[in-house]
Amino acid sequence: MPFPPLKFEKNTLKLLDQRLLPGKEIWVTCRTSRDVHEAIRTMIVRGAPAIGVTAGYGLYLGVKNAKGSREDFFRRLKSEADYLKTARPTAVNLANVIDLVYEAVCRSKESNVKALQNDVLAEARRAHLEDDHLCRTLGFYGSKLLKSGDQVLTHCNAGGLATSGYGTALGVIYAAAASGKKIAVYADETRPLLQGARLTAWELSKSKIPSTLICDNMAASLMRTGKISCVIVGADRIAANGDTANKIGTYGVAVLAQKHRIPFYVAAPKTTFDFNVKTGAGIPIEERASEEITEGFGKRTAPNGMKVWNPAFDVTPHEMITAFITEAGVLKAPFKSSFKKLRRKK
Amino acid sequence: MPFPPLKFEKNTLKLLDQRLLPGKEIWVTCRTSRDVHEAIRTMIVRGAPAIGVTAGYGLYLGVKNAKGSREDFFRRLKSEADYLKTARPTAVNLANVIDLVYEAVCRSKESNVKALQNDVLAEARRAHLEDDHLCRTLGFYGSKLLKSGDQVLTHCNAGGLATSGYGTALGVIYAAAASGKKIAVYADETRPLLQGARLTAWELSKSKIPSTLICDNMAASLMRTGKISCVIVGADRIAANGDTANKIGTYGVAVLAQKHRIPFYVAAPKTTFDFNVKTGAGIPIEERASEEITEGFGKRTAPNGMKVWNPAFDVTPHEMITAFITEAGVLKAPFKSSFKKLRRKK
Repeated sequence: MPFPPLKFEKNTLKLLDQRLLPGKEIWVTCRTSRDVHEAIRTMIVRGAPAIGVTAGYGLYLGVKNAKGSREDFFRRLKSEADYLKTARPTAVNLANVIDLVYEAVCRSKESNVKALQNDVLAEARRAHLEDDHLCRTLGFYGSKLLKSGDQVLTHCNAGGLATSGYGTALGVIYAAAASGKKIAVYADETRPLLQGARLTAWELSKSKIPSTLICDNMAASLMRTGKISCVIVGADRIAANGDTANKIGTYGVAVLAQKHRIPFYVAAPKTTFDFNVKTGAGIPIEERASEEITEGFGKRTAPNGMKVWNPAFDVTPHEMITAFITEAGVLKAPFKSSFKKLRRKK
Repeated sequence: MPFPPLKFEKNTLKLLDQRLLPGKEIWVTCRTSRDVHEAIRTMIVRGAPAIGVTAGYGLYLGVKNAKGSREDFFRRLKSEADYLKTARPTAVNLANVIDLVYEAVCRSKESNVKALQNDVLAEARRAHLEDDHLCRTLGFYGSKLLKSGDQVLTHCNAGGLATSGYGTALGVIYAAAASGKKIAVYADETRPLLQGARLTAWELSKSKIPSTLICDNMAASLMRTGKISCVIVGADRIAANGDTANKIGTYGVAVLAQKHRIPFYVAAPKTTFDFNVKTGAGIPIEERASEEITEGFGKRTAPNGMKVWNPAFDVTPHEMITAFITEAGVLKAPFKSSFKKLRRKK
């Protein structure tokens, strides 16, 4: 069952406000690139592929009323692209999709601004459709790694809501379930924003996939019971050597998986790879407001003035990753050579 | 600065309601053993040593109005002891302190029931005072492991609030700070009940010890930065071989510490040791209500009907523990022989 978190209709972008799930399903309308920037920044929409697709439409909303010459248009397009890229720093899909749309439009010989605007929208739609295709393809390849009876641990939400609707890590689960395999999922709740409890649990419940929610700090005990067949997570940015930035806590789960000899898979489409960054050390890690931790539930749960460290992501070193599940297949180490398959496709 | 979570006055036991900290400081009065049982079960009071001390007074409250013969009294004492032991299963201090009080009173030749009641109260008070002494002594020994500038990670609350006032893991920090060493603390928030965010952060703020709050899933990244000098945690039950039950998540922190070559210390007084249990496999692990995870903040944060796994404790294998900090000194492996020092003292 797909869970699209965005739809483009009546020349506006509608986003499902993921901050309110699972309690409320409210759609927010974005009419300007500023609306889109704010929606990404405040995490109305989140998940690297979904952020990328959203940003593509944001670029269109930024130029849809542009007037003037072709040069004026491209100046405006460039400045909107640069602006949208600043919404959040870690997920590279944001810049990747914006660049794809921008570069495709730059190749146009069109001088009519209205036609160029339509080109931007067409490219944004193409990126949107492509994301769905990439997720379904990587889900198919990943599903072959699972056998009936497997119990998979996942962290954060790398589901439909994090993409155009099908999901990366959860896409693998959906594909396996669709092929008749009985898969059960354990979901880390994923503090501070509880994307596991609020979003992954919601998707899995709706999909009737047997699932159990745990606090992040229970994963170690769970692995020790021998119940977990493998870990599958998504990604926000993958460096050229395979080092992977993903939601905070992912690195810890990888350490635990290594200790318990459990395969650790990262599921991500080509738009999440950043071949310009050599290693994880080059990936910017966003730090977010302390209130996400101290007042995360509308209620103060720490003393006033308490100092907090709140990185939104961490980096898992490539040597701890069993394989990447991508639309070019399941890529194993050495990643420098296996990633070539992905770059060729790109 | 000590943080006593209980006081016995006017023939009643007053407990600081730890569920409401740091927002409110409310003292609850227990007049009967049933009140005490309920206070332990619902975690008004928590922390293994504090539970033990509380149960000692609970035993007195259970017999303070007893009438009849010496035999009637001891029958009642036994039944109250058995009843109080059922309040929670994992922390062995509960049974240990009850047994200490019970056995001491059994040795009395007294036939006057009033006098026997006074004996129970005297033994409960002795256990209370002794806990303070044990914590201060182990704090002193533990403080020698720390040097100025060290940054210590702790999990859950093993502070004054978890004991008669001084703390075990935090007792070590307090003793080091009192001796003039500059120590900074990182506190895991400790889901689901946030004892780290609510209690440890509260104690450290009041004690003016520099401290930083993190979510449990940030500990791995924090360790990877190289900032953590050592981990110090408390314990709920330590088996004869050194396997240690403590708040859920402790085992995961131990795995992370091992991966990052960071010393991992367990601070606990003799009342937390269970030499009748050979290994961690023999320690009962309490599972608690799913609402602690799904509605932990007075607000539903997971879909209705979501299945949850909520073990309150986990077991860290002895081989992952660098040393035990006890009132008999810092005990290193092999624990079977080093624990002899503790058993002699007992």
